[in-house]
Order: sequence, then C-alpha cells, then structure tokens
Amino acid sequence: MKAVRVHEYHVDPSIDDIPEPTITGPLDVIVKVGGAGVCRTDLHILEGQWAEAMAPELPYVIGHENAGWIAEVGAGVTNVAVGDTVILHPQPSCGLCLACRAGRDMQCSNAFFPGLSSNDGGMAEYLRTTARACVPLDPSTNPADVAALADAGITAYHAVRKAVPLLYPGTTAVVQGAGGLGHIGIQCLAALTATRIVVVDRNPDALALAGKLGADATVVADGTEVEQVKELTKGAGADVVLDFVAEQGAESNAWAMTAPAGSQFVIGYGGELRIPTLDFVAGEKNVIGNIVGTYTDLAELMVLAQAGKVTLHTQQYPLANALDAIHDLDAGKVRGRAILVP
Amino acid sequence: MKAVRVHEYHVDPSIDDIPEPTITGPLDVIVKVGGAGVCRTDLHILEGQWAEAMAPELPYVIGHENAGWIAEVGAGVTNVAVGDTVILHPQPSCGLCLACRAGRDMQCSNAFFPGLSSNDGGMAEYLRTTARACVPLDPSTNPADVAALADAGITAYHAVRKAVPLLYPGTTAVVQGAGGLGHIGIQCLAALTATRIVVVDRNPDALALAGKLGADATVVADGTEVEQVKELTKGAGADVVLDFVAEQGAESNAWAMTAPAGSQFVIGYGGELRIPTLDFVAGEKNVIGNIVGTYTDLAELMVLAQAGKVTLHTQQYPLANALDAIHDLDAGKVRGRAILVP
Amino acid sequence: MKAVRVHEYHVDPSIDDIPEPTITGPLDVIVKVGGAGVCRTDLHILEGQWAEAMAPELPYVIGHENAGWIAEVGAGVTNVAVGDTVILHPQPSCGLCLACRAGRDMQCSNAFFPGLSSNDGGMAEYLRTTARACVPLDPSTNPADVAALADAGITAYHAVRKAVPLLYPGTTAVVQGAGGLGHIGIQCLAALTATRIVVVDRNPDALALAGKLGADATVVADGTEVEQVKELTKGAGADVVLDFVAEQGAESNAWAMTAPAGSQFVIGYGGELRIPTLDFVAGEKNVIGNIVGTYTDLAELMVLAQAGKVTLHTQQYPLANALDAIHDLDAGKVRGRAILVP
Amino acid sequence: MKAVRVHEYHVDPSIDDIPEPTITGPLDVIVKVGGAGVCRTDLHILEGQWAEAMAPELPYVIGHENAGWIAEVGAGVTNVAVGDTVILHPQPSCGLCLACRAGRDMQCSNAFFPGLSSNDGGMAEYLRTTARACVPLDPSTNPADVAALADAGITAYHAVRKAVPLLYPGTTAVVQGAGGLGHIGIQCLAALTATRIVVVDRNPDALALAGKLGADATVVADGTEVEQVKELTKGAGADVVLDFVAEQGAESNAWAMTAPAGSQFVIGYGGELRIPTLDFVAGEKNVIGNIVGTYTDLAELMVLAQAGKVTLHTQQYPLANALDAIHDLDAGKVRGRAILVP
Repeated sequence: MKAVRVHEYHVDPSIDDIPEPTITGPLDVIVKVGGAGVCRTDLHILEGQWAEAMAPELPYVIGHENAGWIAEVGAGVTNVAVGDTVILHPQPSCGLCLACRAGRDMQCSNAFFPGLSSNDGGMAEYLRTTARACVPLDPSTNPADVAALADAGITAYHAVRKAVPLLYPGTTAVVQGAGGLGHIGIQCLAALTATRIVVVDRNPDALALAGKLGADATVVADGTEVEQVKELTKGAGADVVLDFVAEQGAESNAWAMTAPAGSQFVIGYGGELRIPTLDFVAGEKNVIGNIVGTYTDLAELMVLAQAGKVTLHTQQYPLANALDAIHDLDAGKVRGRAILVP
Repeated sequence: MKAVRVHEYHVDPSIDDIPEPTITGPLDVIVKVGGAGVCRTDLHILEGQWAEAMAPELPYVIGHENAGWIAEVGAGVTNVAVGDTVILHPQPSCGLCLACRAGRDMQCSNAFFPGLSSNDGGMAEYLRTTARACVPLDPSTNPADVAALADAGITAYHAVRKAVPLLYPGTTAVVQGAGGLGHIGIQCLAALTATRIVVVDRNPDALALAGKLGADATVVADGTEVEQVKELTKGAGADVVLDFVAEQGAESNAWAMTAPAGSQFVIGYGGELRIPTLDFVAGEKNVIGNIVGTYTDLAELMVLAQAGKVTLHTQQYPLANALDAIHDLDAGKVRGRAILVP
Repeated sequence: MKAVRVHEYHVDPSIDDIPEPTITGPLDVIVKVGGAGVCRTDLHILEGQWAEAMAPELPYVIGHENAGWIAEVGAGVTNVAVGDTVILHPQPSCGLCLACRAGRDMQCSNAFFPGLSSNDGGMAEYLRTTARACVPLDPSTNPADVAALADAGITAYHAVRKAVPLLYPGTTAVVQGAGGLGHIGIQCLAALTATRIVVVDRNPDALALAGKLGADATVVADGTEVEQVKELTKGAGADVVLDFVAEQGAESNAWAMTAPAGSQFVIGYGGELRIPTLDFVAGEKNVIGNIVGTYTDLAELMVLAQAGKVTLHTQQYPLANALDAIHDLDAGKVRGRAILVP
Repeated sequence: MKAVRVHEYHVDPSIDDIPEPTITGPLDVIVKVGGAGVCRTDLHILEGQWAEAMAPELPYVIGHENAGWIAEVGAGVTNVAVGDTVILHPQPSCGLCLACRAGRDMQCSNAFFPGLSSNDGGMAEYLRTTARACVPLDPSTNPADVAALADAGITAYHAVRKAVPLLYPGTTAVVQGAGGLGHIGIQCLAALTATRIVVVDRNPDALALAGKLGADATVVADGTEVEQVKELTKGAGADVVLDFVAEQGAESNAWAMTAPAGSQFVIGYGGELRIPTLDFVAGEKNVIGNIVGTYTDLAELMVLAQAGKVTLHTQQYPLANALDAIHDLDAGKVRGRAILVP
C-alpha cells in the first residue's frame, strides 16, 4: 500500500509502497483510512522536534488524526465489525490500568500514539490501531469530513468540557487563537454553555469567522488585547481564558486577562509562564493543563458534529499528493484543515 | 474439581466434581479461588428469587465474592500474570461500551455476573472471569481475609464514596443497619470524612461494635429511632442517611430521618418507598440509588484494607463444608462473614 | 394604596385600600410593584391549601412573583438605590445562617415568603421585602415583562442548572409538562446544554410551542408516553427526567422513563411516588427534589432573559382587575402567565 | 483602651491608649478581644510591604487573627448577641454582591480586612467588625486557644478542602512546609481524607511533629526532596502538592513533585513560578491559587477543632507585651503561634 514515511529529519517524507499492516493482538483493528488530517505537529515531527520525546524508529508513517472504515478485527474485538465507519482516538489505551478504569485515557500507563510514537500512523491506505480507539459513526458519514475532529477537535472539546462548570450565565470566556483548534472551541462553548464568548486573534478574517461561529465579541490582538478584555469585563477579566496559542507572550496575556478566582486553560504551547506565587494567592487564580481528550470526549464531540453543532472547514488532497498538503500547510496556504483522502 | 452447584431451587446445592474451567477468550483469566464469601444473596438464589431476573441455566456454581491467585491467562491479558494474588470485581465489564469508557462498570452493556447470571461462580476450586475483574493485591495477602470486600465491601464503599462531597465537617451521617455491609460503611465513613456518624440498629451488639469502628453515636432501633435521630440533630435530621436495610419500614424511617436538602442512599432492598412528590419539593430532599461499585471503588477499598483502615470479621469453612456455611448463615449463626477456603 | 387581600378562604379576595408598607429594619426595601405574576399557587392559597403550612394571619396581600422599582431603602442597604429596576427573589433570606453563607438561600433558617407566609405580597402598589431579595436589572427593563421569572422562572432554572452536569452531548432529557414552568425549562436546557430535549405533554399546542423553544422531539401524553420515550432512547430511557407535573400518574411515568443511573427531578407536586427499594438498587436511579432556587439562580436567569435566550408569554391585567386575572387562570383562559400591572 | 498601633514603617509599633471603637452601621459588632494572633504578615506590614497594596492610613491598629466575646451589636445583627464567644473571619464581606451570594467571601466586592486594610485590627482590647465575620463558638471555648485558626487555620483548611475530591484512597498528597499553616494542613488532610500524607520540611523537629499529626512519610528538604518524593511514588510524583512555602525554589520543586494530571496548590508566596506551557500540556498538570477561606470553611474548621481533630501549639503574651511577641516572632523564637491575650 501507499504510505507517507519519514526517513530522515529536515527532509520531505516520501510516498512509499509498503506492506499493509496486520493484526498482532486480540484487540487490534485494521482501518481503511478515509481521511487523515495534516497537523502542525506533523511539521514539527519533520523538523525533529519530537525525535527525543517519542524516539520513533525511522522510517515510519506519520498521521495521527484519522477516520475510516474497519477492514479487519482481532479475536477479542466486540465493539466494531468489518465495514463499520469509525473515527479514531489518537492514543489507543490499554483499558486495564487504573487511569483507564477511571476513564482517563490520556493518563494510560501503556498507551501508544500511532504517527507520533514509534508506530505507523494514518497517512496511508491502512492503519493498525485497537478496538479501544474506535468511535463508531453513522454509516453515512464521510470520514474525510470528520477526521480533523480526531485530534484538533477532541483537544478543543476536552478543554471546553472541563471549563463548563465554571461558565454559567453571567460569566465571560476568552478564546485566544481562533485557528484550527480555537474555531472548534468557540463552537463547543456555544453548544455547551451560555457564557459570553470573547475571541482574541491577530487575524481579522479569523475574527469574522469567529463571529459567525458564536463569538459574542471579538478583539484584535494588536498589543492592547489585555486592556480590551478588561474593558469588556468591567475591569475584572474573564472567568475562563482558553489559550490556544500559549507562546510569544500570549501566555502572559492570558494570565493577565484572567479574573480573580478565574482559570487560564493552557492548550497551545511553545512559551513559558512566569508568575509570582503571590499572584496565585492574591487573585486565587488557577492555571489548568490540558492534553488531547478522553474517548468519551471524542464520542460526545461526534454527537455535536452529527447534530451540526460543530462544523469544520477542510481542504482535501489525494494521499498521493500528501507533500502538497504538507508544503501548503507550512506555507500558510491551507484554509481550515488539510485532509488526505484515498 | 469440587464446586458448589445449584441443581434445583428450594433444595440444598450439592458439592459436585466437575471439570475445571478453561480460557475461552483473549481477556479470560482462570483464578484459583483462595476465599469465596457466602452472601445472603446466595440464600435468595437458592430460594429462586433470582431465577427470573438472571435466568441461570441449572445446574450452576454459585459464589460471587471471590479472591485468589491467577492460574491461567488469555492471550490479551496484560495486567496480571500467573501467580498474582487478586481480588475480583463481581461483574466483569467489557471495557468498550460508553459506560465502561466513563468508568461506570456497573452500567456496562455487556457485563456478566459469575455466580448470579448464567455463569459459574467462585464456590469452587477454580473460577473463570476476565482480566477486567482483577485487582492485584500485595502477594502476601491471604485471599480469604479480603474476599468479602469483593461484594459486601465494594457496595458499602461505593455508596459512602458518592456521599463524601455531602459530608463535610458539621454534617451528620446516619448508617441504618450495622451488619455485613453497614459495619464496613462505618469504617469507610470514618476513613474518608469527618462527619458525625450515627448508627441505627436493632441489635445492641452490633451497636457496640459500631462504636469501636468509628460511630460517634448509636441509636437502638426500637420504634423511636426517627425521634432519636431528630433529637441528635436539633430537629433537622441527617444530611445523609445510608440505608443498608431498606425494608420493613426502615426505608420510610430513612426518609423521615433525612434533613431538608439531604439525601437518602438506598443500598439495602426489599421494601417500598411511598413519598408524596410535595415532600421532595418542600424539603428539596433526594433519594439516591446504589449498586455494587466500580473497579476503582474496589481498588480504593483495597488501599484502605491494606492500610488497616477497614477490617472484616470472618468465619472460615473448608469448601467441602460449604453446606454448613450456608446453613449457619440461614440460621443466623455466622459472626461476620462466612468464607469458603480451599 | 390598592392591594389584593385574602380575607377568608374559599371566597374571592378583595381589592382593598390599605396603608403603604414602611421600612422596619436596616435591610428592608420598599418596591413599587411594576409586575406581579398570578400563579396557580395563589389559587391554592384561596382554597386554603396553604393555611396550615404557612398560617398567614388574615387578611393579607397575596402575590409572590414580583418585579418593580426601588422606592425606599433601609439604613444598611448598599446594593440597590431608590429608582433601581429590580426583580425580587420570592423568599428573602437572612444572609447570616450557615445555609445562606453557603449560597443555599432556600434552606435559610430565618427566611419569609411575602404573599405566602404571614407577610404581605406583591399584588399591590408597593411591597416590602429586603435588600437580599433584589436582583438589579437594566434600567430599561419593563418589570411586567420579567416578573414571572421571579417564581416560575427561577424554579425551572434551578432544576435545569442542577441537571447540567448530567446532560453532556449524547444524553437525553425529558421535560414532562410544557406549561408555565416547563416552557421555561425547555429554553434553559437549550441555552445551557447540548442534550437532546424530549418534551411530553397532553396538549398538542404546548408541544408545538415546545418545538419552537428548542425541543428536539415531542411526545403526546396519551397513555403511551413511557413507551414512546423508551423508543426514542433505544429502550434505555432518559438520563434526566424533569417532571413539572408530578401528579396523576405522571410521577410514576417519570420514574419509568428514567434510564439506569439516571435521575428524576421532581418539580411539580400533588402525586405520590411508590417505588420498591430494589428498583433504586437495580437501576442505580435517583429522585432529586427541587424547590424554587437561589439568588444566583435568579441572577443567572436574568442574564439569559436579557440576552433573549429565555422569553415569556404574558397576558397583562391592571391591578384593579386582579379578580379577572384570577378567574381567567382558574378557568384555564390564560395564555402564558397572567401579570398584574400598575 | 490599649492598642498596638503602627505609626511609621520600619519602626516598632507602640502600645497606645485610644478610644474604644463604636457601632457605625446596622451590621457592625464590637468584639472584646480574647486572643489575637501575631502573624508573619504583621512583620511584613511593619516592613511596609503592604503599604502600597492596602494603603492604610497611619497610625492604625494591626492584628487580623482574632477571637473573643461580643460586646455590642448593631440594629441589624441577628446571628450573635452580647456575651457570645466568637471567632472572627478576617475579612468581613458585604453579603449582597454576587460573590457573597455564591458563598465566595474572599471575592466579595466590598470587603475590608481589619488590621491589614485601612481599618483597625485586633491587637487591642476591642475590635470593630461585622456580624458576617462572626462564627459562634461553644461558650466554654477560650478565644486565645483558637484565635490562630482565624487566619492561619482557615487558610490551610481552605486549600485542603478544595483538594479533597482529588485525594481518594491510593493517592499521595505532599505538604511542603510543616510550619504554622502546614501543621494545620496535615491535620486537616488526616481528618478529611485517607490519602497518603508526605511532609517535606528542612527542619527535623517540624517533621517529627508532622509524624505525630498524621504524616505517613516525611522527607528532609535537603536538596534531594524532589527525588525522594518521586521514589516514594514509584516515579510518578504526588497527586496533590500543597505548597505552604512557595519561595526560594520550593515553588519549582512543588511543580516537579506533581504527578501527571496532578495539581500544585499555591498557599505560601514570595517566589516565582517559571513553567513552559508545554509542561502544562504534556503532563496535563494544574497550578491552583488559594487565598484565606470562606465563612463556611472557618465554621467547618471550628467543628474539627472542637472535636479535637485539629489542635494548635500557642505561646501567649499579655497585650501589654505585644512588642515581645513581635520581636520573638521576628527572631524565630516562637514555638507554634504567638497569641496576645487581655
């Protein structure tokens, strides 16, 4: 089969012809890939940024945002059958450790991450993952339409879901960064809460889109964004700041925008937070970490998607043209999410 | 192997010689039974009370409260190995349905209940269950010492655990029924909260034991127990009533003992609650259902047990003398919990 | 001033000329009434149904659902000033007992309930209440447009607010009774959650309105409503049933419609729940009581109202024609809520 | 009356003879001081560290940790009467703003802080505060025995109370700093949870005391404390780290000791946290701010104290010798908490 493989860092991957994956354990499933998202993290992989943390053995297939159809199942698989349409949680978990038993998939002691850890990912015709990664979809769903929810979507949803109890009517939530994740976050906030949604971004086009997706107010990130958020909140700041940027100063702004007793949710990364401990005390403010999401997060998000409450802008490329997609993403030419299709 | 099998309702089970169970699926495990609790539910099974609900095919082996050592594992089992000491969650869950993914094992769509549903239980030399039922124990643990925590213990713990957020300092919790489950519930309350614990029981001996296990006050259930609880709470009633009896009027007393904005937890069964809907409104009171517990409940309870914070009184019988244990239980002659040992 | 006073039970109240109320304590406020809702509870008062529970000294002014403008304030009042537009929490609380300190206004040890307890209510030109009852509104608000939120609205909102954590995407909420409270409940559910909303009512017109307000499915209560809800939920039942009826069998239906691990919220009253304790255990189901709501509930609801997310149908009557409003309500001729205006 | 007044920063306060305070508003109370704690914050006030933030008009009376007897009450006070024994929440709140209505006293929009803001404190014979600060005590309580719970105690309790839902059996909580606040925190953890308590401090005497108060393990802070905590937790770190130090590197250690998905509670202050946003994401870890506590926190803590579950070491000084107490504290000569008594 065809697959996008990284052979060397700082070099384009190649489209190789490799054997199809096979079942190796009772909970394994083989998925015929119907849509594979191209993510900024893929660019970082190519740059070698994940080489140390994940130590994948090269060459390997990238692609960690996938949906498709079940092609084969292991002997212990009972939740999906050949032919089922599925979206895949990016990190298959073991189901047996204490974290799994509590529903905290991302803290699984035995998980792997196809396309990121040393396991072949989904920019290929077929992908091996496990039964525990599979969220069944309505058979009529086109996997390419939803694939981007498997990583970008679940990550935004997870953070919003954790923030819901804080966002009762009368509160304000700031979404900093209305890009790939942020524009999903806005839709999740609008679907799950009646909070006032304020969106901060440098890009006026992104803000215009945000307005259509549910933002109640938008703020151009022109250096005065903290002041603008303060003004919009009578000086108090926002009860919750969902920071999808978290670098280049945005992380400090997010803290400054957070009201007393409020919470800054870190979702993006790249920067460094520097906060005097006195500020945590005086304001009784919190910083909340977030990583991807749980299986139930993804299942819930698919309910929103199938109800039309969360929609995605995608730009499709044939798998054979994967390098175009990667180059376009790198060049900032992709509107919405680039998706590889068979 | 030897096994206690029910052949007919309303008749003593017999100790049969039957083949040892074998692995049938990749997540199966075979456990050498080290301790099998004899529960009042076993008497109800013999009386045919579960015939309709569970429809087991006779003859079958009873025993749903088990601990022991792993004897054999299926191909997909990664959390335990042959020789490990384990206590067994009574209802192995599938790990793949939405309830399982949220950690709500008892609502699993595909669970079974060895010794209760149409699956052989643990009053035998060996038991087949699955990897998902196994909570690993310190190797030095004697399974017979802890087996009763597998059902009686987890059930009491689960209810207490759900009540913890309601039981901050200054509140009162009533434990109605200080028997097999209740005396564990008292210890769990004392370990997990600083609430005032009031124990209600007909039996002065049970109340004396309750005092040693952590009760702050005891009330003889002599027909004036509601008034006594009211007096102990300045007329308000208790914030939480854990009703381990829930029959013969105790269920109504539990409601009457519950303070405005309080909650009655139903754990025992047999009676019927009759409450005007106005009383739910006027008092803003709740009735909370409870069934067994989750895998993490059992794992947490074993932490308490291994720290000596929950202890059990048991009376051991050789497996060959299982009928003595059953008869003694029926005759009210068992102090603590009857446990069958190899 | 003019006021609607009950002199005798089972007899129409009369419109009397009585002295205006005066400040009696430092937290008192006098409110010029701009809108006073006429509630079914007022009919029950006239029938003497509250005579024993509340024991008001006759004659007294009824009306417990009020909004207006501050006319006078006591020496300790700091949150509102003369001229402010306000909606009034129906039960002024003391602010000093432990329940108040925890934000649980309805459990205040020292509260009173103007128009219901032995204190004059709001079917009058002026009303005495306290600073703690006052939720400030945008000055442009017409009190008559929002008065019904002070009792019907807060009660529906409170129950929905408590249910929100249970109503993540993929769940189903049944609203039983789409009348005065229920139609507000539907709007609150749609604003605060992405649950699927199923509305059950006998009246097709009420169901048609429900569809416009956010119901995803409607069910005619024709005796098959339990089966219909089961069908809509693949046999499982609803995760939450908000029962705004709770009499004449609806309360039993609500229980039957509730899924395993689900919760029935009792908001209406009049009937009696009869449930075997085994059913609480086997299904791990809950019954949750609800009464009116907290001050913050009312403040949050006003945010929804001022954002247009909750709207009311009202039918206004001059205070002088209060008896017409009462008779129309009794005769089932009021569309939406009857409101007395100055 | 005698009172300890600050006239100038960087200079000892003086014991002045000033008029007794008088009632100025309907909710005011005058308290005869029975015990006034001397806190490190008082030293910081004398050093001028709070001059800018609080801007008190000099001279003024310090002392923000007080208990005593009600001497006089305003016209609107209903919760306490002359002669009652009370402990005082340090920050009287208004009871009318939204934060107060939700029970979040420390976020009150209109609060003041006697002895810290520009209001006379409790190092005097009498103190003016309000009804909302008063927690009634058993009349037999000696205010001097409990005064330190009014600030040090409530602050430790508040943080522990927030952490309770995270600290189920099987978890580990680290207490960093076993001094004035920390040694109360240890007792609160032991009373409210069954978590494993690990205490980190430089001082072996403090660790010895910690062991008596409920610590399951102690770690000398000798530069290897992070490694030691990791070893005690199989490399994972602690689920919760309560950092009562939060300066001089302890704040970074606290972060390093925190397990994935765990939370660092900042209670002490003085240092600066520097954390890459990637670390919040990769570990899904949180930093939680904490300030003093709510009224109900103090009321709950007094329940623990009166049940003997939290005890204090104090060293009493007559009010006239206040300067000795202040000098001793500054010189590190106070064992436990210094308390001024009449």
